[in-house]
Amino acid sequence: MKKEFLMAPGPTPVPPDVLLEMAKPIFHHRTKRFRDIVAEANQNLKRVLLTSNPVLTLTSSGTGAMEASVVNMLSPGDKVITINGGKFGERFGLIAKAYGIQVLEIMVTWGEAVDSSKVEALLKANSDVKAVFATLCETSTGVKHDIKSLASVVGKTNAILVVDAISGLTADELKTDDWGVDIAIAGSQKALMLPPGLAFLSISEKAKALMEKSTCPKFYFNLKKALKSYEADDTPWTPALTLIIGLNSVLKMILDEGMDNVLKRHARHAEAIRAGVQALGLKLYAPSAPSNTVTSVKIPDSVDGLAFVKKIRDEKGVTFAGGQDDAKGKIFRASLLGYACDFDVVVAMSAIEMVMHELGYKFEIGTGVKKAQQSLLEVR
Amino acid sequence: MKKEFLMAPGPTPVPPDVLLEMAKPIFHHRTKRFRDIVAEANQNLKRVLLTSNPVLTLTSSGTGAMEASVVNMLSPGDKVITINGGKFGERFGLIAKAYGIQVLEIMVTWGEAVDSSKVEALLKANSDVKAVFATLCETSTGVKHDIKSLASVVGKTNAILVVDAISGLTADELKTDDWGVDIAIAGSQKALMLPPGLAFLSISEKAKALMEKSTCPKFYFNLKKALKSYEADDTPWTPALTLIIGLNSVLKMILDEGMDNVLKRHARHAEAIRAGVQALGLKLYAPSAPSNTVTSVKIPDSVDGLAFVKKIRDEKGVTFAGGQDDAKGKIFRASLLGYACDFDVVVAMSAIEMVMHELGYKFEIGTGVKKAQQSLLEVR
Repeated sequence: MKKEFLMAPGPTPVPPDVLLEMAKPIFHHRTKRFRDIVAEANQNLKRVLLTSNPVLTLTSSGTGAMEASVVNMLSPGDKVITINGGKFGERFGLIAKAYGIQVLEIMVTWGEAVDSSKVEALLKANSDVKAVFATLCETSTGVKHDIKSLASVVGKTNAILVVDAISGLTADELKTDDWGVDIAIAGSQKALMLPPGLAFLSISEKAKALMEKSTCPKFYFNLKKALKSYEADDTPWTPALTLIIGLNSVLKMILDEGMDNVLKRHARHAEAIRAGVQALGLKLYAPSAPSNTVTSVKIPDSVDGLAFVKKIRDEKGVTFAGGQDDAKGKIFRASLLGYACDFDVVVAMSAIEMVMHELGYKFEIGTGVKKAQQSLLEVR
Repeated sequence: MKKEFLMAPGPTPVPPDVLLEMAKPIFHHRTKRFRDIVAEANQNLKRVLLTSNPVLTLTSSGTGAMEASVVNMLSPGDKVITINGGKFGERFGLIAKAYGIQVLEIMVTWGEAVDSSKVEALLKANSDVKAVFATLCETSTGVKHDIKSLASVVGKTNAILVVDAISGLTADELKTDDWGVDIAIAGSQKALMLPPGLAFLSISEKAKALMEKSTCPKFYFNLKKALKSYEADDTPWTPALTLIIGLNSVLKMILDEGMDNVLKRHARHAEAIRAGVQALGLKLYAPSAPSNTVTSVKIPDSVDGLAFVKKIRDEKGVTFAGGQDDAKGKIFRASLLGYACDFDVVVAMSAIEMVMHELGYKFEIGTGVKKAQQSLLEVR
């Protein structure tokens, strides 16, 4: 008998009740019945993104919403700042370049957060920058960037701040309106506890004004069209109906638990994992700015990193993510996003201990689990 | 006690076993387990689209795949032919124009099919046309266009033929390779019996060659990137995992029934509906080229068309589609796509009779059901 534990930074486990909700018979989307669901989900999305601005729902992966934030705000030749400290920060630059946009890219060492003063200096030297693209949790490294600080820097300029919060939403704090984030992007398959297939983006008045000047071509991702449908609790194209039904369920679950409590839970679990792995003598990959979305852990030189991730998945049923690009084979990435309880922390730590032991890493069995338990008991 | 019968041209009922298959616990997509599913689905998609070319799966509505066919094949300034005989034929023109492409639009009266000789003449007069965009079943009118004839016309030129078979696939015949269709586009929420959220497109060698010259900007819908991932049974972005799991199930169901049988079933059901409504004295909206995907029926002048569609849905639980744009209130559109049996025809006809009677239309009760039954018994 083996159980499966999905503990990667997306896709994440979907609560069984929500899976069954989405398995109910299909009905038509151009009906009051569906519009009522959309209306409720739209209101609750605002509460989860902590914004009074509209939050649009797109049928696409998160990358589609990233592209939408580029093509609806900008025009060919426009200048933007991107922050490349991992695969997802890099992606904004790739999208912008595909549309003939001039990209000022701030390179950040993998595992470190961006220094806001560098963004500030670049903005001062380039008063014509139209948008700054940032990442809440850089999923490839487990770094949490300081969005509050970035927003205060960008907020003093004419540029808008676009934040990829695809993996981070409800795991790492994002005060969209309080901080002044113009566009916050999220995805369904992370702490929102849904299957992949939906992406979300909030749009501030400042962003709407910029949208009026945008000449990049677009059709499917045309946000003006989406905003018009949004006002009628509708979507411009046939939406991913079952996922939106699930969305309405999970948003209620999140708000029932309370946004503060959801954030605290993710922080508490991530802290316990960090404490546990360090008690085993393992090192964090992003020690100076660890996110609560994904914990990246260095694999000791004596252990085969690819074998670790494979073995823990295939033999123990625990799915973590491995490293990407330069970090391949050198780290594993563990997430307890969305549908997770304290005992998932214990399972994760136990699995890490068992497989590390089997791969020859030396430590006293139980040390990590003990430390994680202590952390869970201390941090309320 | 009321039961719901979803008989609109999409979304369509999903078989309960498939709904439950998609409700199983989520697992990670970058695994052999998922790649095996993708590999099997990709092979079976070819068999359903009757092509030996790759069939790409996108996480989007059908419109996303329509846009992909434009932005990956063309460059700003290129010349194309579109056939506007309804909302979906019109859409290709709108997409192309959004990307600065020159559109030669053939206007076709709603309810009629395009005359291939008009396309031929326009192609002769414009040897620089790069692509012709056509529609298998124009969902807004219920017309089936003669794709075989269009393909023979376009096949003699350098232009590629792109066919929107989103609603029509497996309901109206489409011999992608035999006829010479370069790009065939499909959607999940029609006769494929899945929820909305996936779109598909096949790509011929001729289309691939054209793709090499395309300079339209793209990122999420970049098909070169998608083709590269396709070779590895993978997707460039996180795919709509649960829908792809469902896809693999429904494709097997379709192939188990046999493509010829599936087409015959849709033809048989559509023929019975056409016979039944005409026995009531109702007129078809597209009598000269009726599709088997959706049957459009004129609502008699004496009957309130909007009330009919509302009443049959809210009181009888039968969801048809109404008319769009100019046809609003003037027609209803009935579909038995995918997961449908003979008795769904009987229910549809009975509901039409009951509501037509209640709205004051005069006929002998039972006439339509009788005729539909006779048709079902005659056409095997």
